[in-house]
Amino acid sequence: MKTTRVGLIGCGTVGSAVAEFLLSQRKSLQERDGLDIELKKIYTRTPSGPKSQEIFQKYKYLFVDTLSKVIFDKDIDIVVETVGGIGFAYKLSQKVLRAGKHLVTANKAMLAHHGTSLFRLAGQNNSRIVFEASVAGAVPIIRVLSDSLVGGQVSSVCAILNGTSNFILTKMAQEKCTYDEALHRAQELGFAEQDPTEDVEGIDARNKIVILARLAFGFDINPESVHIEGITNITTEDFEYAKEELNSTIKLVAFCNNDAAVYVCPMLIPKNNFLASVNNEFNGISIWGENFQELGFTGLGAGGKATASSVVADIVNVARGGYINCSPGLDFRKSIFDFNNLTFEHTLRFVVRNRMGITADYSYILKKFNLGIFDMSQRRYEKEMQNTLPFLVTLEPAREGDVQEAIKEINQLDFMVKPVMIFRSFV
Amino acid sequence: MKTTRVGLIGCGTVGSAVAEFLLSQRKSLQERDGLDIELKKIYTRTPSGPKSQEIFQKYKYLFVDTLSKVIFDKDIDIVVETVGGIGFAYKLSQKVLRAGKHLVTANKAMLAHHGTSLFRLAGQNNSRIVFEASVAGAVPIIRVLSDSLVGGQVSSVCAILNGTSNFILTKMAQEKCTYDEALHRAQELGFAEQDPTEDVEGIDARNKIVILARLAFGFDINPESVHIEGITNITTEDFEYAKEELNSTIKLVAFCNNDAAVYVCPMLIPKNNFLASVNNEFNGISIWGENFQELGFTGLGAGGKATASSVVADIVNVARGGYINCSPGLDFRKSIFDFNNLTFEHTLRFVVRNRMGITADYSYILKKFNLGIFDMSQRRYEKEMQNTLPFLVTLEPAREGDVQEAIKEINQLDFMVKPVMIFRSFV
Repeated sequence: MKTTRVGLIGCGTVGSAVAEFLLSQRKSLQERDGLDIELKKIYTRTPSGPKSQEIFQKYKYLFVDTLSKVIFDKDIDIVVETVGGIGFAYKLSQKVLRAGKHLVTANKAMLAHHGTSLFRLAGQNNSRIVFEASVAGAVPIIRVLSDSLVGGQVSSVCAILNGTSNFILTKMAQEKCTYDEALHRAQELGFAEQDPTEDVEGIDARNKIVILARLAFGFDINPESVHIEGITNITTEDFEYAKEELNSTIKLVAFCNNDAAVYVCPMLIPKNNFLASVNNEFNGISIWGENFQELGFTGLGAGGKATASSVVADIVNVARGGYINCSPGLDFRKSIFDFNNLTFEHTLRFVVRNRMGITADYSYILKKFNLGIFDMSQRRYEKEMQNTLPFLVTLEPAREGDVQEAIKEINQLDFMVKPVMIFRSFV
Repeated sequence: MKTTRVGLIGCGTVGSAVAEFLLSQRKSLQERDGLDIELKKIYTRTPSGPKSQEIFQKYKYLFVDTLSKVIFDKDIDIVVETVGGIGFAYKLSQKVLRAGKHLVTANKAMLAHHGTSLFRLAGQNNSRIVFEASVAGAVPIIRVLSDSLVGGQVSSVCAILNGTSNFILTKMAQEKCTYDEALHRAQELGFAEQDPTEDVEGIDARNKIVILARLAFGFDINPESVHIEGITNITTEDFEYAKEELNSTIKLVAFCNNDAAVYVCPMLIPKNNFLASVNNEFNGISIWGENFQELGFTGLGAGGKATASSVVADIVNVARGGYINCSPGLDFRKSIFDFNNLTFEHTLRFVVRNRMGITADYSYILKKFNLGIFDMSQRRYEKEMQNTLPFLVTLEPAREGDVQEAIKEINQLDFMVKPVMIFRSFV
């Protein structure tokens, strides 16, 4: 039995869970899968840190004091990078690939920003990059897109990729708490960072959809060019409206399709849709294609053990000789579809000071931009002040840019209490 | 670019869709995936049949008049078997493997009954068997279990694997039609055969769960030893009860776990459970494991194009050098857990002629078998006769065999209009 030797860089939540698994399951992998996988070296800046200390105490002899002792060890076949961040991780990943070793990483920010150059480097050095754990934790979506849907011709991917924001939205929908209350709950349970910006502003979801778009369609996307909207402006009342007037819920959706549309924003999702049933800290991915219609995948998007199980599956697959088919091929495209040119069904949430002629005023502006009104609904918010009036206007499917222009003008009208909030539905 | 040559045996719904794809997509596979896959020969008994005639007219030169011309063609690397059935398919599959060719098959009945011997034969001849399309159509569950969950330690698989019966149950639940009406609808839409026995009695689902159990846990299961119950005794009223009294729905569930419990039967599924949201002709698979908790997968379970897309993915994977890790290894077990020794929460549906002392009589028998009553609910069915009384009794979690013994006695009581119907919930 050939032995595959692994070096681990970083020993935090995910790294320590990977180490624990490789050390405890070596024998069962030999017996069940006929594979011998040896964790040979671990490098971490803080071996005595809270996550690594248990491993450090039991397996002190595995720890080395410089990165180079892992990267340039000729016996090591696979380097597992679990340090996170972009700068340092990118540099070390380049070194790993140049040294001819395979790279296993869960680092979505690095792959979103530098994936194309890393895949190219891997190709030049006959190395492989595997990254199942970078998107949707334990859900094997990378392998599905890479290996299983080749005959299915994927047309779009529509996904909930950030567990933190999904937890917050679920609490707001189901328990009618405010955004701040829900965020606080998420922080108490360890689902949200003290600074939740990356999660609630859609940055994390954007990094992941960029990875999926590259894999599904071969697009070379600059993450900074992707339109993102977060969830911080969503109110408890929006969920009531969505549920009672539109039989929908609100989810932070990351989307890409084969027309090179890529974006992250809150969307209205009808209750009977697969993604509407993906709740709490779970991730969900809906893949559409002509041949198979819709495929749905759901599972825990984060957590040390869930993520580590995907990292280990990657290590095993490389040891078996498998790979992820993500070479920068002929189809790589540089530019993505302008968000303003996409078509949605827009539902606009108004909060106004009541006076005569409100409908006349805003509908005059809508008409000017050729925007038709599909439906209008009005009900009293429980928590609103008595002298303000909230209502919803659903437009006929329209170009995003036209709606944005119209809203700019509408927001200037004297009766507007706060800017219009837009909820989009797929058409 | 190396050319991989494919021979196709059988050209019905799935076979013709596979042929169509391979012939039309050869160039795009070359460009996008760097693979050249040539469909070299097709054998079918009836080239002029309704499904194959279009291919036959356009590509007559591909068709050969004997099976041997495909199986013993030295240039052919992969044989795709889409004939179905057990006897003939098994014989030809053995020949394919003995000839050192790789076998791609969607034949669940053959794999359930002869999988172990076929995998052994493949191992001896250095051939591969790939079979993504055999379970859950376009859902890539075979590859997920084979490749992606190796680090996750699967503990159980709980699944809706038969689209026909799921369609029938969904119509009964959502549109309150009878079993016969729903079956008729399924037949009109082409979701059910004229003789629906295999689908509605759980035989098809059993064949699929046997394949998944072998893959997930290495069990060598005789399909005939698996406990199956179908859906033909379920009434519209059962759905009303399930919904209103138990906040659940009823699904035909195929289950296996690492204790070697394997069975197919209708189960009560709570409304917020992933499988409860898998409706119509869709399949759904819920996989549980210590590290990732629950993973959910859903998609179309049948249909020519959906199934063909999985067959093509298998062909591409073999051409790339990938394989399914399903060698009969050390863990193969011969015997499965006796269904009577499993523990469920049982809900019993009674239909009785009303008289004094009914509760006393049946609860006396339940007590004799040490079965505790958890809950009892009674409401008037709309469609029942006035002189019969239906009600539900939910028991404390109990051993299946004890419940069966008790019900045998209860069914003899003079007030019973029809035998007790059992609905099980997971405990």
